[in-house]
Amino acid sequence: MASSLSVDFSYSSYSSTSRLLPFQWQKTLTLTRRRSATVRPPPRSSFACSPVAMSANTSAKIIDGKLIAKQIREEIAGEVASMMNEIGIVPGLAVILVGSRKDSQTYVRNKKKACEAVGIMSYEVNLPGDSTEEEVLKHISGFNSDPSVHGILVQLPLPRHMNEENILNSISIEKDVDGFHPLNIGRLAMQGRDPLFIPCTPKGCMELLHRYGVEIKGKRAVVIGRSNIVGMPAALLLQRENATISMVHSYTKNPEEITRQADIVISAVGVANLVRGSWLKPGAVVIDVGINPINDAEDPRGYRLVGDVCYEEACEVASAVTPVPGGVGPMTIAMLLSNTLSSAKRIHKVE
Amino acid sequence: MASSLSVDFSYSSYSSTSRLLPFQWQKTLTLTRRRSATVRPPPRSSFACSPVAMSANTSAKIIDGKLIAKQIREEIAGEVASMMNEIGIVPGLAVILVGSRKDSQTYVRNKKKACEAVGIMSYEVNLPGDSTEEEVLKHISGFNSDPSVHGILVQLPLPRHMNEENILNSISIEKDVDGFHPLNIGRLAMQGRDPLFIPCTPKGCMELLHRYGVEIKGKRAVVIGRSNIVGMPAALLLQRENATISMVHSYTKNPEEITRQADIVISAVGVANLVRGSWLKPGAVVIDVGINPINDAEDPRGYRLVGDVCYEEACEVASAVTPVPGGVGPMTIAMLLSNTLSSAKRIHKVE
Repeated sequence: MASSLSVDFSYSSYSSTSRLLPFQWQKTLTLTRRRSATVRPPPRSSFACSPVAMSANTSAKIIDGKLIAKQIREEIAGEVASMMNEIGIVPGLAVILVGSRKDSQTYVRNKKKACEAVGIMSYEVNLPGDSTEEEVLKHISGFNSDPSVHGILVQLPLPRHMNEENILNSISIEKDVDGFHPLNIGRLAMQGRDPLFIPCTPKGCMELLHRYGVEIKGKRAVVIGRSNIVGMPAALLLQRENATISMVHSYTKNPEEITRQADIVISAVGVANLVRGSWLKPGAVVIDVGINPINDAEDPRGYRLVGDVCYEEACEVASAVTPVPGGVGPMTIAMLLSNTLSSAKRIHKVE
Repeated sequence: MASSLSVDFSYSSYSSTSRLLPFQWQKTLTLTRRRSATVRPPPRSSFACSPVAMSANTSAKIIDGKLIAKQIREEIAGEVASMMNEIGIVPGLAVILVGSRKDSQTYVRNKKKACEAVGIMSYEVNLPGDSTEEEVLKHISGFNSDPSVHGILVQLPLPRHMNEENILNSISIEKDVDGFHPLNIGRLAMQGRDPLFIPCTPKGCMELLHRYGVEIKGKRAVVIGRSNIVGMPAALLLQRENATISMVHSYTKNPEEITRQADIVISAVGVANLVRGSWLKPGAVVIDVGINPINDAEDPRGYRLVGDVCYEEACEVASAVTPVPGGVGPMTIAMLLSNTLSSAKRIHKVE
């Protein structure tokens, strides 16, 4: 279960792609199975997606998210140090955790460590799971007016008795480093408008494409999954850079056929090995946001993590692909740090 | 020129699709020409898009926007009358016009007439073209706090010395009947969120699809053009109803090929006869938002209006198509009235 995982990955304030999976995907999978005699998505718990799994032809370039994230963290550390030296300001990130979910605690701890490593101050509030919405709102309000805090993040999911929309909307738009506020998403969708923050995971996907020199303008891009926190903003970002986007989701009748048209594929649905080699156009660039635990008797933990994309098959077809783990995962926290730094720079008018 | 036209059409606060046309389309057209030996988009001023133009096989159903808009206006008139009888409230729409553009004056006059016809009160402010931004903002502020005004609309384009974004953002989100506020667009893009208002022209497109019983869920939909006021919100609306969307724009390399995959095509680019019969999948439903003047020596005015879609060719291939004029055009003002009524109902808590 995702809740028992302790991995170096999180959506900045969310915990696992499996949350992104709408129930209809199972239906679609069934349809896909019937439709295609040669391509059979494996059951959720299957071990490998290809008979050649362990002897993958790694002709595709591996997009090393771990390395890029490290570079970005170093760049951020440098900027944080300069800012401190020049104007005496240290960027600050406040994280609010409600309840005692193990996975959420791990994500919060990882964020704190990542902040410390680059010199960003982190402020943490831990509230019991039976806190009231008002208590959470009170803390947000405090951070909204605290000049030492430049980014505020509420770790999701919240306990069921709280209204997530109300709580997220109460974060000052200037400190919404998650970029989940509808005003930010609206600006992302509109020509001539700029969001204050770009949601961390899709921003990380774009950063990988940029740093690997992948051309986006004029390319066909397919985004699989349309969540508020990854799929939709990823599609909008690709669109802003003049890709021709298509959005594949649980109601899409021919996801394989559409995906095969794409020069760039971003998958964020939380279904292990959904995207097979046959879904990919030869030479496509594949960004795999999924992080899905599957049973693995050979692993001491009893499971291992795989993406939405059948990695071994993708390596044979794609020109470049992100691994899971070590692809998009490490980028998310790096982008959270980047957003916090940008916020501090904007608030203090640093160029 | 669009500015000399006096037609029963307007984007609710904008004047012509030709404004939506990015300069790159010409480049794309050239590419398309090279690519396809059989399909040649005509020059901007050509008269007919097909040699069989005047003997079109009208096997496609004609989507009668004029008729649907009339029905909607009647429904609105009924609801306005009930509201007046039951709670004594008359919905009110305020329109601010800056400058003396003939086309803008015509659109404002048409809106006023349309309001009167259904019993909505209209309030009009005409400011000279050399007014300051502050004067416009002052009037918006007045309408924001005026309880008899439920919708506020600033006729675009504004004089160049004014900041359109500032002015539009100053309209209370509760009265933004144009639905152009980024917060509205963000909510439109997000699952689990609802915009207060849907922009009038794309709302009109969806209404035509609904009233003609066109199935949207699971269908492939292509939106040509990605403007803030039509293309982007239209794509988001189709997506909300579970279509699989692709967005074609000036940087798309193979617009014809992609469009031919669509069960539903919405075109809003402002290029006369861009979409040829060969761009359409047999049986597709075609919604043509374009309204483009082309030279016509046989017309007493010297021009006639055509859509983005070559109507005669579309009639031979599509299962249903909107004419220009008489398709989407009349729907825009009907949707503006609908948004104003909805706003009044929401403000006064009428079910």
